[in-house]
Amino acid sequence: MNVNGKHYRTIWLNPDNKKSIQIIDQRKLPFYFEIETISTVKEMCIAIKDMHLRGAGLIGAAGSYGMYLASIEAQNETNFIKAIEKSASLLKATRPTAVNLTWAVDLMLKNIGTDKNIQNALKSAEAIANQDAEACRLIGEHGLSLIREISYKKNGETVNILTHCNAGWLAFVDYGSATAPIYAAFDKDIDVHVWVDETRPRNQGARLTSWELEQHGIKHTVIPDNTGGYLMQKGMVDLVIVGSDRTTKTGDVANKIGTYLKALAAKDNDIPFYVALPSSTIDWKMEDGLKEIPIEKRNQQEISHIEGVYKDKIVEVMITPERNVGGNYGFDITPARLVSGLITERGICKANKESILNLYPEHDN
Amino acid sequence: MNVNGKHYRTIWLNPDNKKSIQIIDQRKLPFYFEIETISTVKEMCIAIKDMHLRGAGLIGAAGSYGMYLASIEAQNETNFIKAIEKSASLLKATRPTAVNLTWAVDLMLKNIGTDKNIQNALKSAEAIANQDAEACRLIGEHGLSLIREISYKKNGETVNILTHCNAGWLAFVDYGSATAPIYAAFDKDIDVHVWVDETRPRNQGARLTSWELEQHGIKHTVIPDNTGGYLMQKGMVDLVIVGSDRTTKTGDVANKIGTYLKALAAKDNDIPFYVALPSSTIDWKMEDGLKEIPIEKRNQQEISHIEGVYKDKIVEVMITPERNVGGNYGFDITPARLVSGLITERGICKANKESILNLYPEHDN
Repeated sequence: MNVNGKHYRTIWLNPDNKKSIQIIDQRKLPFYFEIETISTVKEMCIAIKDMHLRGAGLIGAAGSYGMYLASIEAQNETNFIKAIEKSASLLKATRPTAVNLTWAVDLMLKNIGTDKNIQNALKSAEAIANQDAEACRLIGEHGLSLIREISYKKNGETVNILTHCNAGWLAFVDYGSATAPIYAAFDKDIDVHVWVDETRPRNQGARLTSWELEQHGIKHTVIPDNTGGYLMQKGMVDLVIVGSDRTTKTGDVANKIGTYLKALAAKDNDIPFYVALPSSTIDWKMEDGLKEIPIEKRNQQEISHIEGVYKDKIVEVMITPERNVGGNYGFDITPARLVSGLITERGICKANKESILNLYPEHDN
Repeated sequence: MNVNGKHYRTIWLNPDNKKSIQIIDQRKLPFYFEIETISTVKEMCIAIKDMHLRGAGLIGAAGSYGMYLASIEAQNETNFIKAIEKSASLLKATRPTAVNLTWAVDLMLKNIGTDKNIQNALKSAEAIANQDAEACRLIGEHGLSLIREISYKKNGETVNILTHCNAGWLAFVDYGSATAPIYAAFDKDIDVHVWVDETRPRNQGARLTSWELEQHGIKHTVIPDNTGGYLMQKGMVDLVIVGSDRTTKTGDVANKIGTYLKALAAKDNDIPFYVALPSSTIDWKMEDGLKEIPIEKRNQQEISHIEGVYKDKIVEVMITPERNVGGNYGFDITPARLVSGLITERGICKANKESILNLYPEHDN
């Protein structure tokens, strides 16, 4: 999407030498927009591990481009295969729980095989990145219908959409999942405004979603996570769209902690609550989200400390003593009964097994 | 309650000279514990206005003690009555929407009348402070029964209580409202642990509730506001107790923004949700909280900026550009249907008109 009026993806081949990769350093957002050039596998590992980039789709693409760099580096090695296998292991170890990373790196490994042609490796990497962007673009196309319908019912008045965390283009290669229908609606001149949950403790809403919406020119307001319920009580939200980290084939949704609370409020106020997701995040083995989806527990310092700008510098301040904090669970489970529907790259379906398998019959077994 | 093992109230007569007042400067908590001595009406006005102290009960007591200082200052004025009336106006103007402040200052004005005896003024002020503390103590006594019952059902295992914002002793003269039953249970050796909602945007949970619980020796964990729903899903919460800024006579509760979301989650997981309140916060004229209770909108900088410790100094950092933020509503409404009961100084009642008026028959008209 656009940054300062120019189209960007979150990751791309450096046009100057075509032998390095460029990314937006997301650690500096929304305060500073900096592009980082990544020339080696080692640098890509650091970028993934230290979260210069993040988000399921983007991490997968970063792994793919990392394998392209691996194929360049392996050219001069006596054992080409051994060299790229070693790079693959290093890349996969940077975020061991990121399913997309393992998937993308393994696919690259298979595609490269014994082929030392770096152009072929580049093509494979770009195919993976393009596939991610295309899935998101299609989510946008399908989700657009929901926003269009509300806009029509409201006689063209502003459609207010609430979202949680960053399921935006910064988490993918382009478009995003939850944001894709919003960008699509904006492109069709539908009047939209987005309530952006701050999303404590890591503030991805305040830092990333607000930045990307602002850069693309979309009206939005960052609110505390506590506020959404009141806005819904007062009729100030027409639609909720969130992303998903993992969805069971029965429609239970694991997403950023706090999503469940917004789903409850949406239900209580009769507001449609949609989850946008590429089907790659559906776990076809799981039936019960609350029982089966493992929830990551993160470190306490994310709660006790926060980053902000002080005297023109990004610093970390302590907002409460670390000894008092805890319970930093990354995700919660929104049960299917609270989900109005899933927006996927193949279309919109209900959050139940029958409807999901109707869209994805190849998983009906 | 205790600070460093010694009992404190939030406000008290300076024992050294008996002609000044001392308070805990709450702006510095939880980072620094500092006692401020207030010797003049002007200093008390600053302390209230600039939030060295806050909380309905405490503000009322501060107004009363301020009027004691006013009676000292007026001794040498040619027109005693005119002088204390002027002080009363100044005090009331510091927080114009604080109902307790106006009530307490006007009561002091009436009690003082033309009586220049400063000892009588002091007695009146202390009576108001004692009344606040006593109401909270009684809330504790009544609420204790709920915690005791859960402890009994759990065979003495830890009772996990979730609270939102600071309805603790720091908001009153002593005990607090939502915390009073917790302190009472702790004194009876019931094993309690408190989940403390951080409470964005002003972080009263992370800054004040956690500090007061820690100082009194009560186990607790500060969590992001997003986390409570997940904890309830996983059976890690036995009881929710929150305070109230205003309650209708039908049992609708206005409390810190985000309370409604926790009430929804408690209902969805069949967890008792109680509201602790001195009856002085019941609005006997209102029947419909959502329609009638006015909700204060606060400034945006509370969302875009945050205070924390950096290099041993309290500083304010910008966590997202101010132009992106908004919707800083101070409260939301928890409808009576989500409230298991109200804990008042006269006992526990259901959140409905009949049950409330049964406890407070003098308001049945």
